[in-house]
Amino acid sequence: MLLQGPLGDGSGSSFTPLVVVELASDTKEEAIAWLLSRIRDQQRNGGAELLVEQLGPGVGPQEKENPNLFLVGATWQRLLSGAEDVGLFKEFNDGSMRGFTFADRHNFQDFKGDGDDFLSMAECQYIIKHELDTLRAKDETHVPGHSQVKLYPGKSIIRRLQSKGILIQMFPLHEKEELKRLSFSWYKKVKLSLQPLDDIRHYYGEGQALYFGFLEYFTFALVPMALIGAPYYLFDWEDYDKYVVFAVFNVVWCTVILELWKRCSASLAYRWGTLSRKKAFEEPRPGFHGVLGFNPVTGREEPLYPNSKRQLRIYLVSLPFVLLCLYLSLYVMMIYFQMEGWALSVHDEDPTFWTGIMLFIPSIIYAVVIEIMNLIYRYAAEFLTEWENHRLESSYQNHLVLKVLVFNFFNCFASLFYIAFVMQDMVLLRQSLATLLITSQILNQFMEAFLPYWLQRRRNKKMIHKIRKGRTLEDQELPLADQVRLEADMSTYLGTFDDYLELFLLFGYVSLFSCVYPLAAVLVVLNNITEVYSDAFKMCRVFKRPFSDPAANIGVWQLAFEAMSVIAVVTNCALIGMSPQVKAFFPSSETQLLWTVAVEHVLLAFKFILTFLIPDVPKHIQIKQARLEFESLEALKKKRQLHGGKCLKPRSSVRPSSEEERRAYRY
Amino acid sequence: MLLQGPLGDGSGSSFTPLVVVELASDTKEEAIAWLLSRIRDQQRNGGAELLVEQLGPGVGPQEKENPNLFLVGATWQRLLSGAEDVGLFKEFNDGSMRGFTFADRHNFQDFKGDGDDFLSMAECQYIIKHELDTLRAKDETHVPGHSQVKLYPGKSIIRRLQSKGILIQMFPLHEKEELKRLSFSWYKKVKLSLQPLDDIRHYYGEGQALYFGFLEYFTFALVPMALIGAPYYLFDWEDYDKYVVFAVFNVVWCTVILELWKRCSASLAYRWGTLSRKKAFEEPRPGFHGVLGFNPVTGREEPLYPNSKRQLRIYLVSLPFVLLCLYLSLYVMMIYFQMEGWALSVHDEDPTFWTGIMLFIPSIIYAVVIEIMNLIYRYAAEFLTEWENHRLESSYQNHLVLKVLVFNFFNCFASLFYIAFVMQDMVLLRQSLATLLITSQILNQFMEAFLPYWLQRRRNKKMIHKIRKGRTLEDQELPLADQVRLEADMSTYLGTFDDYLELFLLFGYVSLFSCVYPLAAVLVVLNNITEVYSDAFKMCRVFKRPFSDPAANIGVWQLAFEAMSVIAVVTNCALIGMSPQVKAFFPSSETQLLWTVAVEHVLLAFKFILTFLIPDVPKHIQIKQARLEFESLEALKKKRQLHGGKCLKPRSSVRPSSEEERRAYRY
Repeated sequence: MLLQGPLGDGSGSSFTPLVVVELASDTKEEAIAWLLSRIRDQQRNGGAELLVEQLGPGVGPQEKENPNLFLVGATWQRLLSGAEDVGLFKEFNDGSMRGFTFADRHNFQDFKGDGDDFLSMAECQYIIKHELDTLRAKDETHVPGHSQVKLYPGKSIIRRLQSKGILIQMFPLHEKEELKRLSFSWYKKVKLSLQPLDDIRHYYGEGQALYFGFLEYFTFALVPMALIGAPYYLFDWEDYDKYVVFAVFNVVWCTVILELWKRCSASLAYRWGTLSRKKAFEEPRPGFHGVLGFNPVTGREEPLYPNSKRQLRIYLVSLPFVLLCLYLSLYVMMIYFQMEGWALSVHDEDPTFWTGIMLFIPSIIYAVVIEIMNLIYRYAAEFLTEWENHRLESSYQNHLVLKVLVFNFFNCFASLFYIAFVMQDMVLLRQSLATLLITSQILNQFMEAFLPYWLQRRRNKKMIHKIRKGRTLEDQELPLADQVRLEADMSTYLGTFDDYLELFLLFGYVSLFSCVYPLAAVLVVLNNITEVYSDAFKMCRVFKRPFSDPAANIGVWQLAFEAMSVIAVVTNCALIGMSPQVKAFFPSSETQLLWTVAVEHVLLAFKFILTFLIPDVPKHIQIKQARLEFESLEALKKKRQLHGGKCLKPRSSVRPSSEEERRAYRY
Repeated sequence: MLLQGPLGDGSGSSFTPLVVVELASDTKEEAIAWLLSRIRDQQRNGGAELLVEQLGPGVGPQEKENPNLFLVGATWQRLLSGAEDVGLFKEFNDGSMRGFTFADRHNFQDFKGDGDDFLSMAECQYIIKHELDTLRAKDETHVPGHSQVKLYPGKSIIRRLQSKGILIQMFPLHEKEELKRLSFSWYKKVKLSLQPLDDIRHYYGEGQALYFGFLEYFTFALVPMALIGAPYYLFDWEDYDKYVVFAVFNVVWCTVILELWKRCSASLAYRWGTLSRKKAFEEPRPGFHGVLGFNPVTGREEPLYPNSKRQLRIYLVSLPFVLLCLYLSLYVMMIYFQMEGWALSVHDEDPTFWTGIMLFIPSIIYAVVIEIMNLIYRYAAEFLTEWENHRLESSYQNHLVLKVLVFNFFNCFASLFYIAFVMQDMVLLRQSLATLLITSQILNQFMEAFLPYWLQRRRNKKMIHKIRKGRTLEDQELPLADQVRLEADMSTYLGTFDDYLELFLLFGYVSLFSCVYPLAAVLVVLNNITEVYSDAFKMCRVFKRPFSDPAANIGVWQLAFEAMSVIAVVTNCALIGMSPQVKAFFPSSETQLLWTVAVEHVLLAFKFILTFLIPDVPKHIQIKQARLEFESLEALKKKRQLHGGKCLKPRSSVRPSSEEERRAYRY
């Protein structure tokens, strides 16, 4: 995974630059010197023991250019010991995945010596990020030269610098050659093969790869629904007997695909070494604050924050806030429906050109208000979740996702629910659903990929033009300093959050009202195919490289999708129950309702039993995990034996050794 | 925990007898000699390394008396190493619970030297049972002297002898003095204090103690429902506004108590050392058979059986069988209702004395048929579950419980459901519910405790009379040989299955139709109070001592109770929705039904969110478990370090040692 060229421009030493740290241009000299020494210092002195160099000026240096860009790297030994710190799992000699240890490195597969392909560049960058994040203040009271930036022993230095605006950003460098290769196999050629998930994981880490894996899986899983849905749309719109079959199939299918995804995800995560990893590695997230104390699990010193306080904040502040926002959202929706009704009545009374235009005004106002509310809510949710002060990053993410997701669900689907169950206007529902689905797909593709790409292209052109002014270049290959500056100017990728949210809402469109608009699955499949390309494109060309995220599954999104599929059972049954054909079939509306409810309950029960029956982790991985656990318990016993100094007589005199014992078991 | 007197009567050696093994009286001499030598043989030779003696003749020896009774015991060292084999968890010096290891024994609390109270007698007996169960055939082709009893290498000897009728029974001995103390503090004095759960666990093991803990918890948890239900019964029968409140309270309360029980159970199991225990110890159950191979987790040789075959047996044979039985049960119920309707019409037409008697005939026939079906079904279920060939005892139990439970649920409640939702006769429902509840309570108490006690008493009297004939005794204290024979004649306790099933059905009576018969909770509380006494009495006086069962929770019963509480939400909502008061409140029956369904869905959603929000294991125990896991992973790393011979340079030169590292983290 070596970069093409080691650090050249002017600096004396040579190492592979992995991560860029950008400090504000007005940072004091002594603060920079202090930070660099802390990063370079040995671990026994509380440093990070990493290599760091200031980036030289670009080819066309200007006054405005920030000189405080630093390249961070590490020796191979440091990276390997860091891999142990972060609890990386790698394939062992015997084919199982085990936590890497430096001492045992030669027993891992693919380990061939120092400087080899054992660690991917993404892993190296992740390790460096972890080491920088856990670089903690010793006994300084403030950052040298910046007396307003307070420190206390144990506080993460990087985080404090970041929150005070001294550290502008920290990002991993792209790897031109590998990126070219990846993008070619990923989206540049038109192909029928699957995405190169292992390569994506190699370059972007597990979190990204799982997202793309899920996107692909989801697309394939929708194909049967699309195949069944298309003829419904094309031939018989109003044959509700068949719609019942379609809806039941949809509901069962949603459950099955979500359950099978868990198994797929477990297989991927096991192969990538993240399935068993998290448990061993539960450092508090950098933003976590509290009174310094000892962690009851590890015995290490770290900030502690009482769980009861957090619960109070969640239930007394965050929860009421979310409910209030949901109420507001509903309120705005009701105003919209009233406005629309009013506009329609005005238009009907005296239709002129102006009243015709006025018909669109409520929708436009509603869309704008929704967008503004979404934006404000997102900020508020982030602020509140930060304020809840979660110890683990995963817990923070879960609470944030839950908040944003519930609100987005309301904003997207509340109007559809209103049309379906209060107005009971199926034609309007079908129209609204189709309009919402298609516009949101087009908007998303545009906002997500093409707009940022266009902005990026403009910036790049300016930059390259600027550099060309300085000196003439034969080829497109930029010198390192300029390449780094180019990447520093790229937009920051904010994680898979919005991508998953989009999929979640699409899943809602497909599943919630499937029997009203069977074409939804076809549209979503088509959308997903372009989504793969546009997402891949935006990852490779538009954004800074993100730090890899050692995810073992899609986390809270699994739960969100499952909740959606439960709601889908209810809505589909209700829609079918409401259809005039079904109503005509039963003698009284009461028996018809009872039957609908009964069928719904049976479906729900069947769904839960199915969830219960399909194991979340494939058998062969369960066995491998159990073996690791068994071995670690055996090792604990062995360790005690070695340290149990008071032992009166050696164990072998009392009972046979483990080899003998095994033989004894055999017979 | 020493027994009062060591083995005396005639035998040369002296050890504390713990377990009795009874062989058929026609067992061949060489088979006995072979078995004894295998039990006594050292472990390195594939023996169990236990002490075993034949029991001497009783005081009043008769022709019919079986001479082949053997007492099994063990040295303290053997018991301690056995404690390690079975993965016993004990309190460590630092207050946490850890897997016991012989080498580290001095670091465990309460370990004071050999022959102390460290292991309870129940634990010792469990260890001996485990060692006997895992006594496996070496290369014999059959049991010496019994050529029809085939053996193959690795087959459990005890199990084979048992299945061929040579081993009649194997049971642990009671401990007269401790039993007296326990029974006094448990049920003999009328008291307001709680049950001595720790003592029960000490004497009977964790499975029993958890049952009694659950029984006590369940009783206390029902008290609020009883307190609220009683005035409903006493004052306003027909005020449905308040019934809605009562039903909602019931439904929420059921969820809350079941969730809190999980936490209680986890606390108890942690204190008793079973919470983290099972994982380490997953030996196949003795009845498990298959082709000999290597267990993929432990690497030990044991029978293997393909999971796919088991799944086929479950889904293609067991499941259809269960469904068929349920159908039969429903069919019988329908016949019963027809018969009753017919008898009623005959009686109404021309009421005579004989038709009055005939009114009872359908009920009697139905009750008898139900009992016969229950009995046959129980045998069939046991046979099928055995045939499914589950590897783990827990898995076998789960499948058996599930089968029996579903059938019993149908038999008990199908008629009530029919009355409630098809006949819609609330007065009849109330009557039936009360009748069923009260009669089943009385019958249960009688069948469970007093009948076996009465039978036991008769046998005991005969026995003591017989012994008295032989020689005159001053006190009631029997010599060991007679005591053993007395216990061998006692009934065998068949596990907590029926006790839990009874509680489960009672829970159904309380929760399913709570709004029709609010007095049910009062009756169940009263029943449970007597149930504690009768169950305690039967455990201490009626049955043989059972082997302890290291349970960490109430297992599949938790799931069963939760499923019941989900069904209760549905039934209660339906009952309230059907009441004429609620129907009168709404303008149309359709809106009323819709509201009922909406309320039900909200309650169900609330229930699931509540289940999700309340953590199953209390925080402080989670931390202790995480610490143990953390330490075992660290130990695994350490072990690798020690064994990683190819290590190029010592680790300390690359990165600071763990002590230095910890210091580094601190600053």
